[in-house]
Amino acid sequence: MIVEPGGAIGILGGGQLGRMLALAAAELGLDALVLTPDEDSPASRVARYTMVAEYDDRVALEALAANTNVITYEFENVPAITAEFLAAAGALVRPAPRALEVTQDRLVEKAFLAQHGVAVAAHIDVTSKDDIAKALRDWDAPAILKTRRLGYDGQGQVRINAHAEASDAFDKMRGAPAILEQVCAFEREVSIIAARGGDGAIAFYDLCENTHANGILATTRAPAQCARDVVLKAQDAAHAVLDALDYVGVLTIEFFLMPDGSLIANEMAPRVHNSGHWTQDACLTSQFEQHVRAIAGWPLGPTSRVADAEMTNLIGEDAYAWQKLAADPDARLHLYGKRDAREGRKMGHVTRLKRT
Amino acid sequence: MIVEPGGAIGILGGGQLGRMLALAAAELGLDALVLTPDEDSPASRVARYTMVAEYDDRVALEALAANTNVITYEFENVPAITAEFLAAAGALVRPAPRALEVTQDRLVEKAFLAQHGVAVAAHIDVTSKDDIAKALRDWDAPAILKTRRLGYDGQGQVRINAHAEASDAFDKMRGAPAILEQVCAFEREVSIIAARGGDGAIAFYDLCENTHANGILATTRAPAQCARDVVLKAQDAAHAVLDALDYVGVLTIEFFLMPDGSLIANEMAPRVHNSGHWTQDACLTSQFEQHVRAIAGWPLGPTSRVADAEMTNLIGEDAYAWQKLAADPDARLHLYGKRDAREGRKMGHVTRLKRT
Repeated sequence: MIVEPGGAIGILGGGQLGRMLALAAAELGLDALVLTPDEDSPASRVARYTMVAEYDDRVALEALAANTNVITYEFENVPAITAEFLAAAGALVRPAPRALEVTQDRLVEKAFLAQHGVAVAAHIDVTSKDDIAKALRDWDAPAILKTRRLGYDGQGQVRINAHAEASDAFDKMRGAPAILEQVCAFEREVSIIAARGGDGAIAFYDLCENTHANGILATTRAPAQCARDVVLKAQDAAHAVLDALDYVGVLTIEFFLMPDGSLIANEMAPRVHNSGHWTQDACLTSQFEQHVRAIAGWPLGPTSRVADAEMTNLIGEDAYAWQKLAADPDARLHLYGKRDAREGRKMGHVTRLKRT
Repeated sequence: MIVEPGGAIGILGGGQLGRMLALAAAELGLDALVLTPDEDSPASRVARYTMVAEYDDRVALEALAANTNVITYEFENVPAITAEFLAAAGALVRPAPRALEVTQDRLVEKAFLAQHGVAVAAHIDVTSKDDIAKALRDWDAPAILKTRRLGYDGQGQVRINAHAEASDAFDKMRGAPAILEQVCAFEREVSIIAARGGDGAIAFYDLCENTHANGILATTRAPAQCARDVVLKAQDAAHAVLDALDYVGVLTIEFFLMPDGSLIANEMAPRVHNSGHWTQDACLTSQFEQHVRAIAGWPLGPTSRVADAEMTNLIGEDAYAWQKLAADPDARLHLYGKRDAREGRKMGHVTRLKRT
């Protein structure tokens, strides 16, 4: 299946990732139709059409299926049932719904990764306070309790540094299914943005290095400062996952780089990713164009990097510095058109290139 | 006046230039509102809102003025009265309507250029066949008869190689006011893309070199192969024009480069220009972002070129090669989402970079 210029891609979700996907689609002569429950979303302002509807609105989903050539999603918390309904309605959903099932549940995701030879942190399924207590006794490290579903940007996570904190942490989950993960004493956080085309071709962007603040990505540097074999290990992991899912589109895996040079997968995302924004300015093909190319059945574009890059997120009031950033000749400014610079809200990002 | 992120720019015209302006605005967090008489226009598919209305539709113009912070245009044949009506309705129109008045009439434009020290080809106002006959006797060269208004891409032009062709050529103008220009035996065609900010700052892109086929731009190469003093002359000309018009935005001047190294201005356009498309892939700030920055009162961005570039237009059926072009790792493909690959229609363009 090839979506020809003039065709339309459907996007589930109206945030900045959907917006940048829509912009990339437009450069290739493709229309974007967005379905999102949110009024006045960032993606809606650049899409050809937007349906403001819930993800279980069958009339809206059928309309999306009828008016697009392929449908994708900008975040992994789209209900799997939505993707399945679309597929049943005859729509081509890429990546396939299976990628949602795997990544929507941290426990399922970890099992999937381990099954395909990708190391993950020690973890347990938590159904009681006793589960936590037992694990803390076994592990010689602090741990993090996370909801199995619907977490993002550090939401739904509680760090447990001592046994005494276990009970409070469990209560904070409010009965939601949870997973306890051993905290990894990592040296760096790195991520790989990978793509697989409709023809099975695979392309990798350079491994990049991330810092977080308050659970939210703060900066990404590309390339990551690490040995070549670390890069190859990350590529192998991504390759295994992409093939196992018969994946079409861009996929991201975040890893902890351990002091011994090993990689432990932290999480994966079946989509373009904040830690891949640097590709817009530093690569011949951005992650957004790459995802559109893949789902549209086009050949993947070259992923070569033309400069070293550092991406800084503009979170909340950071965006008030836009005038200064716009005047900085070394800063490539990207803003998402969000009205309200609320705390913790991703408002935009800045990429700085250093030609080598 | 500064348009803050979240603000809106109005664009008169819905073609590919409007589309690329809207996409550039989106990257800066600005919405684009388009007014165009055409249904299903390229710009409408990426704009936040589109009003399909004639340029003399006062209700639509008032709505555009009321819902935008600044209004610009993607082509110079927007009726000057439209721009004046918008200005009277309280809208900030950039570039100011005076730029439209000057560039809508070839005779006025040439007088304006000459007045500001920019050389133009020998030309006369044509009101009768006798005017043509007399000029052909005076000039030792073929000539081109052009409508004074509403010409583009070689439309409304007739070349006169011999006296005997004068009468037919005059009849083809169908009574439209016309201008006869002496044909310049040029060595190359070059153009300069220049920008002036709201603060009067001026920036130039590298002089580039164009080839035409059937009156339509075929290719642009940057930088132009020419002596440094030619570049400076082109910059001086653009500088004089920008200041004389108290211009805000991107402006383009096309020149003939003569064998003696002199420049003769062919025409100017008060807008982004097809011969500046290479800036999207080869410069830190594209001409589209630059225009948006200027009209929004933002500082101009850096115009430095990071690679040599060659832009090739995809005209009509050229666009059928999109699959081959999408698979070429050296080709950066841009498509405008036009449905019909009609003859002579600009469907997209391809930029190839050669890093130096």
